[in-house]
Amino acid sequence: MSLPKTMKAIIKAKRAPGLTFIEDYPVPQIKPGEVLVKVMAGSICGTDLHIYNWDEWAQQRLKPPLIVGHEITGEVVEVASDVDSVKVGQLCSLESHVVCNHCFYCRTGREYICENTKIIGVDRDGGFADYIAIPSQNVWPNPTSTPLQIAVLEENLGNAIHAVMAQDVGGKFVLVTGCGPVGLMAITVAKAVGARAVFATDISQYRLDLAHKMGADRVLDATKEDVVAIIHELTDHEGVDVLLEMSGAPSAIKQGFAALKSGGAAALLGLVSAPFSFDVNENIILKGVIARGIAGRRLWETWYMARGLLEAGALTLDPLVTHRFAMADFKQAYETFQGGNSGKIMLIP
Amino acid sequence: MSLPKTMKAIIKAKRAPGLTFIEDYPVPQIKPGEVLVKVMAGSICGTDLHIYNWDEWAQQRLKPPLIVGHEITGEVVEVASDVDSVKVGQLCSLESHVVCNHCFYCRTGREYICENTKIIGVDRDGGFADYIAIPSQNVWPNPTSTPLQIAVLEENLGNAIHAVMAQDVGGKFVLVTGCGPVGLMAITVAKAVGARAVFATDISQYRLDLAHKMGADRVLDATKEDVVAIIHELTDHEGVDVLLEMSGAPSAIKQGFAALKSGGAAALLGLVSAPFSFDVNENIILKGVIARGIAGRRLWETWYMARGLLEAGALTLDPLVTHRFAMADFKQAYETFQGGNSGKIMLIP
Amino acid sequence: MSLPKTMKAIIKAKRAPGLTFIEDYPVPQIKPGEVLVKVMAGSICGTDLHIYNWDEWAQQRLKPPLIVGHEITGEVVEVASDVDSVKVGQLCSLESHVVCNHCFYCRTGREYICENTKIIGVDRDGGFADYIAIPSQNVWPNPTSTPLQIAVLEENLGNAIHAVMAQDVGGKFVLVTGCGPVGLMAITVAKAVGARAVFATDISQYRLDLAHKMGADRVLDATKEDVVAIIHELTDHEGVDVLLEMSGAPSAIKQGFAALKSGGAAALLGLVSAPFSFDVNENIILKGVIARGIAGRRLWETWYMARGLLEAGALTLDPLVTHRFAMADFKQAYETFQGGNSGKIMLIP
Amino acid sequence: MSLPKTMKAIIKAKRAPGLTFIEDYPVPQIKPGEVLVKVMAGSICGTDLHIYNWDEWAQQRLKPPLIVGHEITGEVVEVASDVDSVKVGQLCSLESHVVCNHCFYCRTGREYICENTKIIGVDRDGGFADYIAIPSQNVWPNPTSTPLQIAVLEENLGNAIHAVMAQDVGGKFVLVTGCGPVGLMAITVAKAVGARAVFATDISQYRLDLAHKMGADRVLDATKEDVVAIIHELTDHEGVDVLLEMSGAPSAIKQGFAALKSGGAAALLGLVSAPFSFDVNENIILKGVIARGIAGRRLWETWYMARGLLEAGALTLDPLVTHRFAMADFKQAYETFQGGNSGKIMLIP
Repeated sequence: MSLPKTMKAIIKAKRAPGLTFIEDYPVPQIKPGEVLVKVMAGSICGTDLHIYNWDEWAQQRLKPPLIVGHEITGEVVEVASDVDSVKVGQLCSLESHVVCNHCFYCRTGREYICENTKIIGVDRDGGFADYIAIPSQNVWPNPTSTPLQIAVLEENLGNAIHAVMAQDVGGKFVLVTGCGPVGLMAITVAKAVGARAVFATDISQYRLDLAHKMGADRVLDATKEDVVAIIHELTDHEGVDVLLEMSGAPSAIKQGFAALKSGGAAALLGLVSAPFSFDVNENIILKGVIARGIAGRRLWETWYMARGLLEAGALTLDPLVTHRFAMADFKQAYETFQGGNSGKIMLIP
Repeated sequence: MSLPKTMKAIIKAKRAPGLTFIEDYPVPQIKPGEVLVKVMAGSICGTDLHIYNWDEWAQQRLKPPLIVGHEITGEVVEVASDVDSVKVGQLCSLESHVVCNHCFYCRTGREYICENTKIIGVDRDGGFADYIAIPSQNVWPNPTSTPLQIAVLEENLGNAIHAVMAQDVGGKFVLVTGCGPVGLMAITVAKAVGARAVFATDISQYRLDLAHKMGADRVLDATKEDVVAIIHELTDHEGVDVLLEMSGAPSAIKQGFAALKSGGAAALLGLVSAPFSFDVNENIILKGVIARGIAGRRLWETWYMARGLLEAGALTLDPLVTHRFAMADFKQAYETFQGGNSGKIMLIP
Repeated sequence: MSLPKTMKAIIKAKRAPGLTFIEDYPVPQIKPGEVLVKVMAGSICGTDLHIYNWDEWAQQRLKPPLIVGHEITGEVVEVASDVDSVKVGQLCSLESHVVCNHCFYCRTGREYICENTKIIGVDRDGGFADYIAIPSQNVWPNPTSTPLQIAVLEENLGNAIHAVMAQDVGGKFVLVTGCGPVGLMAITVAKAVGARAVFATDISQYRLDLAHKMGADRVLDATKEDVVAIIHELTDHEGVDVLLEMSGAPSAIKQGFAALKSGGAAALLGLVSAPFSFDVNENIILKGVIARGIAGRRLWETWYMARGLLEAGALTLDPLVTHRFAMADFKQAYETFQGGNSGKIMLIP
Repeated sequence: MSLPKTMKAIIKAKRAPGLTFIEDYPVPQIKPGEVLVKVMAGSICGTDLHIYNWDEWAQQRLKPPLIVGHEITGEVVEVASDVDSVKVGQLCSLESHVVCNHCFYCRTGREYICENTKIIGVDRDGGFADYIAIPSQNVWPNPTSTPLQIAVLEENLGNAIHAVMAQDVGGKFVLVTGCGPVGLMAITVAKAVGARAVFATDISQYRLDLAHKMGADRVLDATKEDVVAIIHELTDHEGVDVLLEMSGAPSAIKQGFAALKSGGAAALLGLVSAPFSFDVNENIILKGVIARGIAGRRLWETWYMARGLLEAGALTLDPLVTHRFAMADFKQAYETFQGGNSGKIMLIP
């Protein structure tokens, strides 16, 4: 196959809000150990909004110009001569964290906290483009039967799986606080591995409706309902065994811990906008609670788990992708996602 | 409520094969810490056949006369004056192991290997009778909505849960070797907690049909099919992640380990009739396999897990109870169970 | 042996600060399931100071009159007729938590968060007296070779073991923030199980000297030294693998988390006087940290662990008991402990 | 530094017993991703004897000509242009398993069972030579303070650590069956992480003496003493909590399991010469035992653990290296090791 010299790409062109769609960006050259992937679809993540809005975090982290986008699925179209574990023609999803393989964390099975991680679309060119060059080790092979709207979700699904599998949920009561995409996927994952019941809270009716479609046994509008009291009612006054905190909202975090039974486990994924007053005695110590920070995905345990649950047909993911846009229409896509009345949004080259 | 003085009971009357049905056996008197349970149903287990047949194990263990039967559900009709954790009228299933509470194992959360265990129907009077006296701590409360054919299974279900939960199965390939009742229940439990696929082997077509009804993705007749080759085919030539050994047959054990991938986990529950030649190198060491012996049920983690899965509606148990008999017809019940063409068999007082 | 009718006891006589020493308090009568222990020694714990000072927690929890004291060693002198697991003459330490045995936590091996716990010296009569009546299950047998100053520490040692064993420390860097008695014991426990190095912080030179004697590889005065910077220097700029938080001081908690490496584990035991501003992002989520609340002792895993380490001669406990007083001199004992320039303080009947 | 063209090497020259010492073997050329290590010392392992003796396993596995030797320490003298994680001048020990990084096992933190492993000195050129070329990822950096006789042991020490750390041993009774080098190292590792006591069995008085020097609390000559009875006596009739099986002898394996308490853990490392009759009921199932196969070393957890224990000064390794030979005297070295009256034997280029 003969590759073109230029391609379409969405880039952060300069140190300012917004993004730029370019029709004739150079197609990347692969280096040793890398492959070139022809992008079939991408999806937008909360991190992409930070970059779009050029908030403080983005200003400190990004070095434009840079192609954005890190949730990517596509097909391998070229492999470096030293790569033999991946073949041209392979359909794939991409792990977005390019890890160093030699730091303490990489060497002890915790690549998700690699101290030298480069994230595509953040620290190196991403995949909202026709092509992306990426190390072969970041390629996750998909069978040809995987629908595009599932393949594009797999990276983000890994975060949800990481959170759910951080503790046993089989036969247990689970509370998901925050029904953004990761929270929504956590609902179906928890159901798939045998949760007794999954409760979900949010402050948006749109998202609570999605939570219901994803399989939540009971959804709670935190602006209108007494979450803690109702959860206690629903759990024989015991509280939930597991809290999956996906909101990053201090009020939701406090509700979540208040609804968590003694000896329970909390998986904390949602980033908080600022430190807040937290009652370590009541929430953690006296209850003997375990709180785990969930960063990234376990490489590659969460990908294997995703494959297994998908093959088993155990996940309900269809309701999640609510919108699709051409890459050229990225503005509309980003602003729809920002508006909150959406699930995941796909971008098609 | 006024209790009768005598009751119906199935007893091992003397040191010989067979059992005796008695119409006017004395109703047991409760001691401090005990409750009296009016039996609503019992079910027959493999152990009961050993006792019925009076095999070597039974000869060494039992001291007749003794009421038999250890899988029991009923209603609490009397409680000792020092018992306040259980009330009259409580519907319940019974944990069959009466543990000592003070040995090393009881004191470290492993009551299932209590060194002073007395099993009802084996070491002390059982429950194939109108009434049974038992320590209050052996009572597992059931909601009134629990169907009798589910309640009577819960003790045995705990063995299946113990085996399945001994390792992670979510998203993984599982092989169940041996489709007796515990194997059959292990199939639905593994499916409920998100197994990628569950394969099941047996040498009886009747049981393989049951396995299929319980949710096995593929059943294999070990007398006709090349189990190891087919499993490798079904698992992308990797083998299964988890082996649940329920048969006690050396040939099945060997097949199971041969079908287990490196780094896999084996839960061994089926008792073998005699030591056999086992390849520790190939099966355990070089593959880095973990093999766990599964004895009894975790008190009370497996019971809570059972409750959670039942409440979630995640288990398929309906096909399991295939026959019901009045206690007076115990001979027919035992011989049907012995014949192999049955699932669980209920006895009703 | 004929038991006296009255005894010496230190009691909280009324709802006010202070305690009262009484010469002729009634010797307690044992109930079914209980034993009577002749007290050989007690020791004072932080909780005892709360009771002595009659702070808000004490006012809400205690119902005077009540014998105080929960760290107790003695000899069994009488057993109820239904007790056969404990014999008269047995030397013992006492587990201070009288648990219910039938709640969810007791039934799943987590008696330390039993929802019906009664603590001796807090919720029922304690052991700063000549005798104490206590359930037989709270008796931990000691060999006759156990020195009194070790036996009296075992209950509190269990808290330290609970914290240390909550995560692996073998070959790892450990930081203990707060060198009160539990912090001091955590130092020697961590060393005994192979910590690469144990660092300890406090704001009292007296306690830092004790920490050094207990085996800390480096002690740090948080009022004078830059704890985080020095720890990073001492750990090849990686940070510690394990934080054992024993101080309850927000400043120490923040230092501890800042010194903790990504993927590290924090065991939180020290209670904080009030909620404080905590950075969940930096301390927990982005670093992928696991934070565990440590309440009480694992019954009875920590006691077995204590026995094992004591039998191995692996612990350095001699420096810990710095003062001994007769019970009649309890005021001096409490005030010495309150002053901060002490290790553990023993009370002898 | 200018590298020579030829070097000394011990090679398996042809498909027959024995080895050949060659003075002018070509110095290997490094490929991308590799480094060249100047060998400072090697040590002989049981595997090397299989190769020397050209037994059935060796005949099936090796493809001569091949430089032998896989326990190697040295200094990096050249690095490929694409390697930046390792520098020239770095002192190091070598991980002997060259793993593929992309199979299921490598991708889930279990490189020790990589399905494409190439072992140096077995599947590719080893290090009993002046130089060895090896992937940079196989280099474990050592501080300059590490004595040569420790550095050369680290790879093999990793096997011992893998076995010991496969279960908790802190405060517990441990039995090591088989006092070859890995068994001997397991003794000091178990002591370092707080074992209550370590018992060791062998049939060689020489090795039992070494076991005593390595820190075993009691050594037992299996040819003369009733191992099981004595262990039960030494453990208050409970048995040991942990069995570390290092002998590969069926009689020792049976003794080990008989001496293991219910609920205990067995780490099986010693390879057996042939399948043997094993009582799964008594040894595994009824006792609720966990048996783990120990293959290779955890990459790189065991190396970090080794570093931590070495830095802590917690290991007794000095007695272990009992002999040193020049490479030219390899015959004497191999035959001394074969004779059994030795610990580890070092080879110096």
